[in-house]
Amino acid sequence: MAIIIAAARQVPSIVKDCAEKGVKAIIIVSDGFAERGEEGAELQNEVVEIARGAGIRILGPNTLGTVNTTNGLVTIPYITSSRIKRGNIALAAQTGLISPTASRYGDLGYKISKICDFGNKCDLDEIDLLEYLAGDLETKVIAMEIEGIRDGRRFLDVAKRVAKKKPILIFKPGRTKESKKALMSHTGSIAGDKKIYESAFKQAGIIQANSLRELLEIAKAFSYQPLPEGNRLGIITITGAGGAMATDIAIESGLVLAKLSAETDKKLYEIHPTLVGNPSDIGQMAGMGMPPYREVIEAMLNDENVDCLLCTLQGMIPAEYYLQTLNEIKKPENKPITFWVFGPGSDGIDQIYFELENNGYPAYLDIESAVRALGAMCQYTKIQMMGKDGRRTQ
Amino acid sequence: MAIIIAAARQVPSIVKDCAEKGVKAIIIVSDGFAERGEEGAELQNEVVEIARGAGIRILGPNTLGTVNTTNGLVTIPYITSSRIKRGNIALAAQTGLISPTASRYGDLGYKISKICDFGNKCDLDEIDLLEYLAGDLETKVIAMEIEGIRDGRRFLDVAKRVAKKKPILIFKPGRTKESKKALMSHTGSIAGDKKIYESAFKQAGIIQANSLRELLEIAKAFSYQPLPEGNRLGIITITGAGGAMATDIAIESGLVLAKLSAETDKKLYEIHPTLVGNPSDIGQMAGMGMPPYREVIEAMLNDENVDCLLCTLQGMIPAEYYLQTLNEIKKPENKPITFWVFGPGSDGIDQIYFELENNGYPAYLDIESAVRALGAMCQYTKIQMMGKDGRRTQ
Repeated sequence: MAIIIAAARQVPSIVKDCAEKGVKAIIIVSDGFAERGEEGAELQNEVVEIARGAGIRILGPNTLGTVNTTNGLVTIPYITSSRIKRGNIALAAQTGLISPTASRYGDLGYKISKICDFGNKCDLDEIDLLEYLAGDLETKVIAMEIEGIRDGRRFLDVAKRVAKKKPILIFKPGRTKESKKALMSHTGSIAGDKKIYESAFKQAGIIQANSLRELLEIAKAFSYQPLPEGNRLGIITITGAGGAMATDIAIESGLVLAKLSAETDKKLYEIHPTLVGNPSDIGQMAGMGMPPYREVIEAMLNDENVDCLLCTLQGMIPAEYYLQTLNEIKKPENKPITFWVFGPGSDGIDQIYFELENNGYPAYLDIESAVRALGAMCQYTKIQMMGKDGRRTQ
Repeated sequence: MAIIIAAARQVPSIVKDCAEKGVKAIIIVSDGFAERGEEGAELQNEVVEIARGAGIRILGPNTLGTVNTTNGLVTIPYITSSRIKRGNIALAAQTGLISPTASRYGDLGYKISKICDFGNKCDLDEIDLLEYLAGDLETKVIAMEIEGIRDGRRFLDVAKRVAKKKPILIFKPGRTKESKKALMSHTGSIAGDKKIYESAFKQAGIIQANSLRELLEIAKAFSYQPLPEGNRLGIITITGAGGAMATDIAIESGLVLAKLSAETDKKLYEIHPTLVGNPSDIGQMAGMGMPPYREVIEAMLNDENVDCLLCTLQGMIPAEYYLQTLNEIKKPENKPITFWVFGPGSDGIDQIYFELENNGYPAYLDIESAVRALGAMCQYTKIQMMGKDGRRTQ
């Protein structure tokens, strides 16, 4: 494999050299091709013709390249493999923005199997990658940022097949005509209209994210947690407003509030009368020393009417307490849990966030993300069930 | 003034003692009142009757109290005045979640004039506070989290008047029937229906935030920056995807992409040909040493077709460079600018974020927030102009 980082006009002759030497795969990092107007597009076509003639596959041009944490191959210049943690999230994008080290996520435990920046997609594209990742044993969840899709019909066919095996999350910038112009998006793109691709994505069983941040945050929950069997959410909050905020997003994400069994209500009552109900408010216990997180989480998670759980943690309590508590909890295998780490102060929050993530618990800095991630997981359960026997969750 | 932190059932007799001693204002921190069902509601009524008879005003019960950075009065137990920075943002809410020290914002430079947690609003409520803040010289922007409104008509009348003087930002959890149940919201609330209060808020000139995080992030831009005169946005990006992401949110927030003048395009071309256009992509210069941030920002901001600017900063460049650059820039007085601080790595990002905020520049960890804040400012410009002479911005 060759990696080309050189002025655009020198690239064709370098690709010719590669062809002569029998190179079979090239990553072209250089920019100045189709993204820069007609002249660049011609140069790009020239490169593609040379490569096709020699049976060379190309990633790029205008790409930062790839990361493979399984074999340690990192072609992205500003990423060192030591800074990427090995895991099961595959990230793919048409931009270098996707790299977890390009944001705060990198240092916060985000665990990667593969990264691929498509760049201009002169040859290899999102369909090739989907097919590859479908069979990649290291990848559990596929998160993509896609700006334009060349062959919409084939992409949806492939995605539909892959989505039955692994969740596909997509964030698509360029949903307004103004931003599409800014992207100079390629002809043959799937759409035009935001509603058209939203509907197409839905039919194919693709889960949509509304921002790059949401894409990364939803993927994290899939990576760390089991899939829920249904959409009945339990909420452990520390304030009434927190419960309401979580509930709003839950309903908007396709979740329903679990109705706790009489047995669970009894357990909660015995811990403290103010804990009864869903959302269960643990906040008032916080003033009285260590709150009974273990007991409340266990009671909620083991209720047959609860499919998934959002738990609010408080930054003033040491991270070790939470880790120990979470390790002790007896929980069913099929009930995901996400965590909102709440104030006061950034030191406590950051420490808990970091320790949780490092130990395989998905932590969030805002309650909306923590709930939306569970909503996406439940949406995927539905996608899988529809594929199998047409049954639906509640 | 008295602050009562005692078991709920002891509160009536304490309020009686206060009445005898001639106390005129009481903050009741204790919970266990109307938020806890009928019995608590009766206890709350008892307290209100005693206070009314004695001419005592009450904040709460079930409140964390207030912060006044002008005179240093802090009644919230877990907030020390040293941790709250003095500024011009007034925060008010029905929950303790509003406190800036309750989130990462506290340590990141968020600058406060007043904080008020309404709690159960047995006496003082959002209308009283709006009227007070309208005249408060220290307050430039009013940010509220409101769950229920007792007297909708009067609230809207007062808000309409105040909104002409100062921006009122509101985040309202409880927009689904499930979350309203979770809040046990009081009768006489403004709505019911999400659409009803959205429309009412709009008529009153209130700017709505979609989350607590967005409320705090929008308020910050109003606090630090001048109001724009129109809605034409300039974007300095470092990737095509960043430009598209910013543009999507801009259009959805009521902004339009500024069409740069020929003179600006010429200036940008002279700096570097790849910089021409809006969004202007400074990313490719980043590989060549220090990018020409000062020149590009000046060119964009001084274009008569640009009303406001989003600027992407890169975390690998020292914060000092940005601060010096921003200090040197010659900019018009009426053009707000917000900053997206982008990777790689949390250390660089956090340092630039902190230094910018501390020096009065609104910084954001995601591009959506940085654009939405400018959209809200432009929305407020419209609100003010409509009030004056019915003119509209583009």
